[in-house]
Amino acid sequence: MTDYSTFLSVTGRQLTESAIRRMGTVVARPGDMVSFAPGYPDSSLFPWHELQEISKHLLDGHDAGALQYGPTRGYAPLLESALEVMERRGIKASADQIIVTSGSQQGIDLIARVLVSPGEVVLVELPTFTGAIAAFKNMQADLVGVRQEADGISLDHLDEMWQKVTAAGKRVKLLYLVPNFQNPTGSLLSLAKRRRLLEWAERRDVLLVEDDPYGLLYFDDVATEAETRPMRADDPNGRVLYLNTVSKMLAPGFRVGWMLAPEMLIERFDTAKQSTDLTSGILDQHIVYEALRSGVAERLAPQLRSLYRHKRDVMEEELRARLGSRLTWHSPKGGFFVWATLTGGRTDAQLLECALQHGVIFVIGSAFHVDGSGHDTIRLSFSAPSAERIREGVARLAKAFE
Amino acid sequence: MTDYSTFLSVTGRQLTESAIRRMGTVVARPGDMVSFAPGYPDSSLFPWHELQEISKHLLDGHDAGALQYGPTRGYAPLLESALEVMERRGIKASADQIIVTSGSQQGIDLIARVLVSPGEVVLVELPTFTGAIAAFKNMQADLVGVRQEADGISLDHLDEMWQKVTAAGKRVKLLYLVPNFQNPTGSLLSLAKRRRLLEWAERRDVLLVEDDPYGLLYFDDVATEAETRPMRADDPNGRVLYLNTVSKMLAPGFRVGWMLAPEMLIERFDTAKQSTDLTSGILDQHIVYEALRSGVAERLAPQLRSLYRHKRDVMEEELRARLGSRLTWHSPKGGFFVWATLTGGRTDAQLLECALQHGVIFVIGSAFHVDGSGHDTIRLSFSAPSAERIREGVARLAKAFE
Repeated sequence: MTDYSTFLSVTGRQLTESAIRRMGTVVARPGDMVSFAPGYPDSSLFPWHELQEISKHLLDGHDAGALQYGPTRGYAPLLESALEVMERRGIKASADQIIVTSGSQQGIDLIARVLVSPGEVVLVELPTFTGAIAAFKNMQADLVGVRQEADGISLDHLDEMWQKVTAAGKRVKLLYLVPNFQNPTGSLLSLAKRRRLLEWAERRDVLLVEDDPYGLLYFDDVATEAETRPMRADDPNGRVLYLNTVSKMLAPGFRVGWMLAPEMLIERFDTAKQSTDLTSGILDQHIVYEALRSGVAERLAPQLRSLYRHKRDVMEEELRARLGSRLTWHSPKGGFFVWATLTGGRTDAQLLECALQHGVIFVIGSAFHVDGSGHDTIRLSFSAPSAERIREGVARLAKAFE
Repeated sequence: MTDYSTFLSVTGRQLTESAIRRMGTVVARPGDMVSFAPGYPDSSLFPWHELQEISKHLLDGHDAGALQYGPTRGYAPLLESALEVMERRGIKASADQIIVTSGSQQGIDLIARVLVSPGEVVLVELPTFTGAIAAFKNMQADLVGVRQEADGISLDHLDEMWQKVTAAGKRVKLLYLVPNFQNPTGSLLSLAKRRRLLEWAERRDVLLVEDDPYGLLYFDDVATEAETRPMRADDPNGRVLYLNTVSKMLAPGFRVGWMLAPEMLIERFDTAKQSTDLTSGILDQHIVYEALRSGVAERLAPQLRSLYRHKRDVMEEELRARLGSRLTWHSPKGGFFVWATLTGGRTDAQLLECALQHGVIFVIGSAFHVDGSGHDTIRLSFSAPSAERIREGVARLAKAFE
């Protein structure tokens, strides 16, 4: 028998699995499980009919480019449309400062590969997105967590950690964060903190990775579009690498996102992407371009905000009624998640075990923490299940507590 | 100004660009350029109508899974269909031994990440596919070239290089090769050598990466399907990592390929893929599944063989008539490429410069060599241009020689 373990690289031996992906596998098993685990968008609002019409047109053979190899940088008309989308968010960027990525995840991976050498420090929020943890760890980054407050990352703790790392002789290259309706906490970074973060990044010579999949999913009873203004819109010194995706606003199956970065880095990301997948899906890029150009995506956004706001309301109502004494949480102002703290001393893993037996699943909070903490927290996604299933799921969760 | 160069990782500083991708960018420029450069399939044989029907059905909303996130390993029905395709090539593999990749390129990248640590040796053919060179180099692999003979890689030189590397205290982990109609030489590895390679890999404790995008594109005047039998079909000790793709047999825009590997390694590739792109394109996987299931791909194969054989004939006829005294080559028995040697002392780069001025482009042979040699060789792709454009292109090439 061949012993494959001797063939593994340093990376291959240390690979980090995404806790969310693992939950996704559990959910894929047969049975009547209510899933609050992966942050899947609600497929009932995928614009099926419009996408069908777009695909029909694209596959009539008039443009061979719709199925041929294409440029690594991305389908040029899509890049232009993406820049227009960004302009509506206050961002001015040129065609040399954008690259299409196979979902935001590839953007994080390219950043990790091109910018992070083994042992270098990347600062992340406590807690943070597990896909980012995995991508940075798989490049042997040293991940250091920074605490959050109600209005986002703690700037005091941030600089404290920077000083600590620097005093230890290590280089802090990046701060990765999700300013709008963070994954997993749902929190919104205040505008004042955004400004101060940009100053901090310049002062400490750090780049900011601004991952923004949920920016347009603000709930208009408690948040405004102005409050979601990307840091990249006010970035005179080119400190921000900005990631966006159509996964939440159109459909995740396309694997189409984009990254804005300084031109010199875009060239490196392009070269790195060549050897990872040559190009993102070409038909997908054409479909997404048509959906942006024709306004399908823009028309959809208010419906998405309204749907997810309603689901948040249902989940919070049920949680208050059934689990008000066992869980505490901040009401999310947008996005997909309720981030809850367990008050009774039980751990996230213990609760998950009981929950699975009662037919409901979520992601344990500790999976989002790079410092080993968070065992008293859980992430509940309300985005995918229907209102009825949310009620059923919370009822099951209540039983799991008993 | 922010100095981004100080932010680059070891990888980011050493990134290797694919010579073929660079040529692709040149071709994308306006003007009447005849391109013998990238190995693009002929889009006139993309099954437009069938794909249009398939997409229409998939986008009618009956299956939310067609646009939702899906398992990293791949869409289960597609995995099963791929295993059936493999079985028709003589390969028996289980569902635990396959993973969908975003094109074969991602398969190579995953292998490089999971198996190759910086400084470890990967053996490759002289010349070899530039996409493989880039993927391995970007993991800081030490690439060592092995000469080829008319019937594929030289087994004597292979073992000689293995001994040399081993004597220098280094580990040879992988041998990467394209046995069927190699990129760039078009050569076909003999069945006898395939058997001996499997024995060699076992004796020397090396894994074989068998990249097989062109296996079904044999030209039946000079080759048979039996001669393209993958090494993976006769691999008792699990020495082969096998890569396949629909890019050449259906359309490259889908970015759908698959890798067969031992279960233990598939699990690692799965974990590594999670952090690179979460999942390959979901709609693409559904479309490709339907194209395999319904027999579209299988019905297309004889037409593709016949079309590319005809194009080879046209190119060779023209080359003989116009450049018989300036170029020598072996007639390809399948695939996309004529690999030619310049007889007059001119270098590949000098010829390319003249060729560009005359409106024809190809890939310089030295780009496929990891040892700095090959400056008297060029790769001419006959796959994409029409017969008429091939004639025009060779006429321009003849002028470039003058």
